[in-house]
Amino acid sequence: MTPPVRLGLLGCGTVGKALVRLLASEGPRLRERLGVDLRLVAVASRNLSRRAPEALPAGARRCEDLLAVATAPDVDVVVELVGGLEPAGPLVAAALGAGKSVVTANKLLLASRGTELAGLAREAGVALAFEAAVAGGIPILRALRESFAGDTIEAVSGILNGTSNFVLTSMNRTGRAYAEVLSEARELGYAEADPTADVEGADAACKLALLARMSFGQEVPLAGVTTRGITRLTPVDLEYARLLGRTPRQLGIARRLADGRLLLSVRTHLVSNDSFLARVDGPFNAVQVSTAHGGDFVFTGRGAGGDPTATAVLADLVEIARSGARPAVPPFGTRELCPFAAAGPADSVAPWYLRFVVADRPGILAALAGVLARHGINVDAVFQAPFTDKTALPFVVTLEPVDEERLERALVELAALPFHVEAPLSLPMTP
Amino acid sequence: MTPPVRLGLLGCGTVGKALVRLLASEGPRLRERLGVDLRLVAVASRNLSRRAPEALPAGARRCEDLLAVATAPDVDVVVELVGGLEPAGPLVAAALGAGKSVVTANKLLLASRGTELAGLAREAGVALAFEAAVAGGIPILRALRESFAGDTIEAVSGILNGTSNFVLTSMNRTGRAYAEVLSEARELGYAEADPTADVEGADAACKLALLARMSFGQEVPLAGVTTRGITRLTPVDLEYARLLGRTPRQLGIARRLADGRLLLSVRTHLVSNDSFLARVDGPFNAVQVSTAHGGDFVFTGRGAGGDPTATAVLADLVEIARSGARPAVPPFGTRELCPFAAAGPADSVAPWYLRFVVADRPGILAALAGVLARHGINVDAVFQAPFTDKTALPFVVTLEPVDEERLERALVELAALPFHVEAPLSLPMTP
Repeated sequence: MTPPVRLGLLGCGTVGKALVRLLASEGPRLRERLGVDLRLVAVASRNLSRRAPEALPAGARRCEDLLAVATAPDVDVVVELVGGLEPAGPLVAAALGAGKSVVTANKLLLASRGTELAGLAREAGVALAFEAAVAGGIPILRALRESFAGDTIEAVSGILNGTSNFVLTSMNRTGRAYAEVLSEARELGYAEADPTADVEGADAACKLALLARMSFGQEVPLAGVTTRGITRLTPVDLEYARLLGRTPRQLGIARRLADGRLLLSVRTHLVSNDSFLARVDGPFNAVQVSTAHGGDFVFTGRGAGGDPTATAVLADLVEIARSGARPAVPPFGTRELCPFAAAGPADSVAPWYLRFVVADRPGILAALAGVLARHGINVDAVFQAPFTDKTALPFVVTLEPVDEERLERALVELAALPFHVEAPLSLPMTP
Repeated sequence: MTPPVRLGLLGCGTVGKALVRLLASEGPRLRERLGVDLRLVAVASRNLSRRAPEALPAGARRCEDLLAVATAPDVDVVVELVGGLEPAGPLVAAALGAGKSVVTANKLLLASRGTELAGLAREAGVALAFEAAVAGGIPILRALRESFAGDTIEAVSGILNGTSNFVLTSMNRTGRAYAEVLSEARELGYAEADPTADVEGADAACKLALLARMSFGQEVPLAGVTTRGITRLTPVDLEYARLLGRTPRQLGIARRLADGRLLLSVRTHLVSNDSFLARVDGPFNAVQVSTAHGGDFVFTGRGAGGDPTATAVLADLVEIARSGARPAVPPFGTRELCPFAAAGPADSVAPWYLRFVVADRPGILAALAGVLARHGINVDAVFQAPFTDKTALPFVVTLEPVDEERLERALVELAALPFHVEAPLSLPMTP
């Protein structure tokens, strides 16, 4: 048996409650089979009076003072499940400063202050673990840090936000509009009351920044990720996508160019129906890792939810118990992250899908094609499904591979043409 | 920097050569970014004179005496890539006995003598690592041992043999016969001169036994895996599978029943075209892990080949260098494996596909249906494609879910009926 590890839990929402249950149900197996004894000694959450109390193990205390638990002398490891930057950041810093290892699922905190917190952990000689922060139960961070240590990672990408994926796959399946599907997602618990961070890509951007740090060892800032939401997709786009043998997915993609600069984006792609990613439906997540020697790997599983996230937290706790809180591998895999080297839109080349909605009149296609030609952009095909509303006629132009800088310049001119009923929508197409 | 780790390599075939190249190309990154200094000091392989010499680093020696390298005083970690039981087994035992950590890709050795070798490693206080033994570059063993430590695994399954998967997907794509496709696979390097272990399932059975030990902590013997080959599939089966919306895959499946007994098999399944596994084509591997709390996870990637396998070996070496060869986690995840508790065919329930080839005459279907009815087996549907050769007419009966013990009893009677041109073929159908 390793020495008992005393846990202080900060925050007892969905994931916290799942962790309390998981510790109770898996505890005997962990003690008997792995020799790991995890003891929950304190649970701190605000507004205790408003919550139904969880069934805590004998001797565990419940309180509202999060800082007191984060620094309590009888706590060895702090589990931070408060979320957000405040007060989670100061709490984690205080816990590390008090010589406690920390396990957290807080992607925003790690993406914003990860390097600083990793430095505090190193100074204190303790562990900072956050497998649960990216893709829920999918064990991708440990894989990047350890399993792919012997290979050079060229790209890491994937479906990183379950809410967006649920909305896109529902729109695709039912043909219904974004707003309608979003409200269904809310009812089913797949979207929060305010889904902005999910559907606008900020949540996926945090996860992508963490994946990119692990993969490339660079100090990737959140602002380094180009982010576009899924909110402008309409049922018409789903129809055209089907015509093209494609389906929309919100993808986070981080790719290293030959010169070491990184290209990072979160946006809606039209992926080929033949790809794995097209099969990742509903609230599932997927992460693809492309390496120089081993080739491509895909990991899929539940990316959110109390139970999958809690299993990732518990795996981190088991690792800390086994290693005696002296991690052989630093939180981001490398001891020192290099400065971030950003690539720009000129480095991003893909075939694109452009969807226009216009008030029909002669000469529209000629005008659009003229702008594209002036920018040296080749049209691949033009699609117009038989829609009858001539006052708001949607049609699609697909482009041969073009760099995004050139495309953006052309789009500014295209958008300024007088016949649009709504602004053009542009989506990259991905194998 | 961690202290330099001096490597002795045993065996320099495809994977060994790839490792030598990989150490050269990734070495600088490992030193600079991870602080890990791996130094190849000796390469031993038989029949050196017959081989083109690899470009070894300065100071590394080449010899034919494998045991001398396995126990050399200037070697810290032995990499065993000889394969097979002899002489690999005694070499690994000697290396561990001499206090050296061992990294190996030898699935047969681990499946046959893994517990004994893990015991030697523990006594010597060194590491025994074998990520490369299962599914090549896919980091599944570390995931089972560490990432899923906080969850109860209910089943582990997958496409574990690239040769079989290449043959089945080629048969499906081209409609050609098994023998023809196999010889193409040989030409392309996806099948060995003697492919028996691959196509009859012995290779996948070794990997499944290792996955099951990791997942369930039981002393799973190779003989505990029911194994059937892919060799009896014909183009006719591919046609019927298509009619059923299915595709054939050689799957290894290990499942724990509620009472803790394990059901283990390697055989051809007809999987639904909607499943992930139907998308895993050619030489790729996939492993699916089903857990009590986190749900289902799938890992895919290259399951064989020099480079992917070498990256898994190198990741193990990096871990040993980082942890100072004092592994916090034992080779099979748990310190002591429990005895194996086997489930039997009566516990294996699935819908089945039965294909018959008969000399056409009246009353055949009545005779077959009569046998099935007497055994209490319900027919789901009967399919007969328009084949014209009445002397060897293939047709298919699908069954509602039935346990395999009952099915096997019925199949003995079915096979004894006088009108068969070849023995009936039975395949389970899997979601």
